[in-house]
Amino acid sequence: MQFTATQIADLLNGQVEGDANITITKLSKIEEGVHGSISFLSNPHYIQYLYNTQASVVIINKDFTLTAPVAATLIRVENAGNAFTQLLEMYNEVKLNKKGISKLSFIAESATIGSDIYAGEFSFVGENAIIGNHVKIYPQVYIGDNAVIGDNTTIFAGVKIYSETNIGKNCIIHSGTVIGSDGFRFTPENDNKKVPQIGNVVIEDDVEIGANCAIDRATLGSTILRKGVKFDNLIHIAHNVEIGENTYFAAHGVVAGSTKIGKNCMFSGQVGIVGHLSIADNTIITAQSGISKSITKKGEVYMGSPAFDANKYRKAYIHFRNLDSLVQRVDKIEKLQKETELKEN
Amino acid sequence: MQFTATQIADLLNGQVEGDANITITKLSKIEEGVHGSISFLSNPHYIQYLYNTQASVVIINKDFTLTAPVAATLIRVENAGNAFTQLLEMYNEVKLNKKGISKLSFIAESATIGSDIYAGEFSFVGENAIIGNHVKIYPQVYIGDNAVIGDNTTIFAGVKIYSETNIGKNCIIHSGTVIGSDGFRFTPENDNKKVPQIGNVVIEDDVEIGANCAIDRATLGSTILRKGVKFDNLIHIAHNVEIGENTYFAAHGVVAGSTKIGKNCMFSGQVGIVGHLSIADNTIITAQSGISKSITKKGEVYMGSPAFDANKYRKAYIHFRNLDSLVQRVDKIEKLQKETELKEN
Amino acid sequence: MQFTATQIADLLNGQVEGDANITITKLSKIEEGVHGSISFLSNPHYIQYLYNTQASVVIINKDFTLTAPVAATLIRVENAGNAFTQLLEMYNEVKLNKKGISKLSFIAESATIGSDIYAGEFSFVGENAIIGNHVKIYPQVYIGDNAVIGDNTTIFAGVKIYSETNIGKNCIIHSGTVIGSDGFRFTPENDNKKVPQIGNVVIEDDVEIGANCAIDRATLGSTILRKGVKFDNLIHIAHNVEIGENTYFAAHGVVAGSTKIGKNCMFSGQVGIVGHLSIADNTIITAQSGISKSITKKGEVYMGSPAFDANKYRKAYIHFRNLDSLVQRVDKIEKLQKETELKEN
Repeated sequence: MQFTATQIADLLNGQVEGDANITITKLSKIEEGVHGSISFLSNPHYIQYLYNTQASVVIINKDFTLTAPVAATLIRVENAGNAFTQLLEMYNEVKLNKKGISKLSFIAESATIGSDIYAGEFSFVGENAIIGNHVKIYPQVYIGDNAVIGDNTTIFAGVKIYSETNIGKNCIIHSGTVIGSDGFRFTPENDNKKVPQIGNVVIEDDVEIGANCAIDRATLGSTILRKGVKFDNLIHIAHNVEIGENTYFAAHGVVAGSTKIGKNCMFSGQVGIVGHLSIADNTIITAQSGISKSITKKGEVYMGSPAFDANKYRKAYIHFRNLDSLVQRVDKIEKLQKETELKEN
Repeated sequence: MQFTATQIADLLNGQVEGDANITITKLSKIEEGVHGSISFLSNPHYIQYLYNTQASVVIINKDFTLTAPVAATLIRVENAGNAFTQLLEMYNEVKLNKKGISKLSFIAESATIGSDIYAGEFSFVGENAIIGNHVKIYPQVYIGDNAVIGDNTTIFAGVKIYSETNIGKNCIIHSGTVIGSDGFRFTPENDNKKVPQIGNVVIEDDVEIGANCAIDRATLGSTILRKGVKFDNLIHIAHNVEIGENTYFAAHGVVAGSTKIGKNCMFSGQVGIVGHLSIADNTIITAQSGISKSITKKGEVYMGSPAFDANKYRKAYIHFRNLDSLVQRVDKIEKLQKETELKEN
Repeated sequence: MQFTATQIADLLNGQVEGDANITITKLSKIEEGVHGSISFLSNPHYIQYLYNTQASVVIINKDFTLTAPVAATLIRVENAGNAFTQLLEMYNEVKLNKKGISKLSFIAESATIGSDIYAGEFSFVGENAIIGNHVKIYPQVYIGDNAVIGDNTTIFAGVKIYSETNIGKNCIIHSGTVIGSDGFRFTPENDNKKVPQIGNVVIEDDVEIGANCAIDRATLGSTILRKGVKFDNLIHIAHNVEIGENTYFAAHGVVAGSTKIGKNCMFSGQVGIVGHLSIADNTIITAQSGISKSITKKGEVYMGSPAFDANKYRKAYIHFRNLDSLVQRVDKIEKLQKETELKEN
């Protein structure tokens, strides 16, 4: 991709100051600008970089006043941050604009395929699967029998989607993620027999799932990720779990079987939640915390393992750090008490 | 799959009450019953759902007495729970009954292939590998040179099995799992040189491994999972570890190098165990706990990081939660002591 | 592979004692020696095994004095440990000596391919990718557009490398690992819109990455793993993170976005590090610890969640274990104080 400053300015509805014909081939941070890159200045803390950046073009706010000469060509716009995000999105759209069904893919004859899809090399689509319009199936993806993939969803290389999984529109699933594997249910009391897992996974619209996650199918019924759920990498979701709308999970989160999680929750990294709980909307859980009881009040912050109110936890933890001095104080008190006792007798 | 109530009753050795010709196409929980589904009633807490379920057919115990009219067709059997499990298993068997070697798979000429196997599209079987009878190799699976897979084992899409791995009979390995990757051994004192990892992984019969696990080969000798071991998702097993018979690991468990774990242990999610330890049979470890010392007494429960006796941990943790009040009590005691001292002098 | 004792002795520049024509086909520990295996004795604690090992050949130090007859053929060398490591390396080299481009792989015409590479079945190399000399690409690997792979790097089966990733020389990437997936950045305040991730991942020379790791691309710029970094399995590295030279990460480590980690650090299993921190060189973090603040002093050891100085943590943790007795002491003190007060009044 190569553009002139003028072409970019036209796209962003901005005005060029400097060499209008200079060409750019990539995007960079202003402090990492190189010849041929375009950057932006939005955060005032970065103003210093404007005057010595190596970037060929910098996008700045319309009303920004220069206090020294700038080597880069400038493009002035209403809001430099938004304009740059617009460029990022355009760049990504071009980069991800894969099309066509590879001759080296396998698509079952009974599958239903939408218009304008991409199916990369060595990808597999099983019996009776239904693939929506504009779906992107990268190389080495597996989509099992009867799975349904909604319009505009992107599935990156090597994702494995078991049979009967139902994925909505505008979702993004990153490489290595497994959806629909069996829930972990055995009967130790009955010769460790496996409980058959015949439910499925339902993922609603606008969900993004990071790399190498594992989301188990339900025993019966569905494991559900509601609209707008966002997952980081390496997250485990057990059978029959339900995650509410727009809830965020940072990396290495774990949710055990049948737990129901509310909307708009925010869970930091390495959080664990035991099975059969209900977690209220807007709950926040700090990193490495473990939730062992249902949370009924909305919007609370939890910390610790097992977790409780985060402010109380932080206070208790400060005392924990100082336990040695507390113990020494108690030693001293006992000593004094003993001395007093001796004196009195 | 479509069956009439009569056909199901015959399979389960049960008796139909109601419309014997009604057809069912899927299985559901009684509280999630829909037209065309078959459910069961076993747990007395769910009796309420019997009288208004939308399921077309419900399996109930022979001796169950109705207290109101039921819209669904009933099938009466000796034990409704067991009968339903039987249906689940039959359903699963049909669903997973994949057969045949795809023309789009690659099987080395030197490999030995049993009878009646499934080898899906883009699956790979290496030199001198030995594949037992009725083995199911889903699409995009990799089985390295000299690996051995026992009869009736199922390997789901995209599993990667390194060379020399030895897997027993009736095992199930879920998607994304890696078996036989190199153990993590380097010599920081010697220019960070890698210690070659030339051992293998041995997995005995009846083992199930969840999605996206990673089980390293031994440096020399074998990393071993004994008969009946059950793993949830995203578990890490280091080189030369040995896991005893029927031990269960919930998601995100971690075992460091050369640790030996006993039989019938139960480890909750996100448990970590350091290297070169011995863990006694029947040990239970609670979620997020970290084991830093060998456990010699059987059947104990451990909690905390580093972990100790779970009852003691819970007691200590209650005090931890109340540390602020303990500190205030000590403050008060000191104040009183000081006042007493002043009075006395 | 089959060798006689004489052939091995010639390779190791050693001298045979016993049957020089005995053949060996595998390597074993001395305590696990079997007919046809070659072992070594280096650690004095294992001397007992020398006299009854079933190994056909044992490598021992030149100056080792036998105190009883030995059944195995001996090969005497300068340093038995080093000689055995040399054998391990030779064994591994032969085992991993895969060559040739499979007809069942897909390599884009615009890709540049070095000499003497291996590209296994169902592997994929994208547009404009550059693959160095002697690179090994195992089956089902995905290498995205514009990716660069340095000389002598080995990429095991099923690794997924997104577009624009840049990997150095002599690296090893284990199965299931994903490199270059999108960073986890959304704007909850702006309708949960995704922040486009258009940076890349740069991995320098001599890096080894275990199985099923996930390393996200930068938002802009690069996520960087410096020369000699070693990762165990299932590690998560977020966008824009930088890991210094020769830093080691045990399994299940997590580093959140934009954190910069120094050289020669050692992180145990399940460690978590929050975003936007700086961690000094030579920092050691114990298992399951969570780092919530930057570490500026080099060579310190941290423990706990949130972590602080490990010695202080261990001391505080001993007090935590004994909190019940501390509380009882305070109870007793209060009781005595109250009695004294009553007496005095």
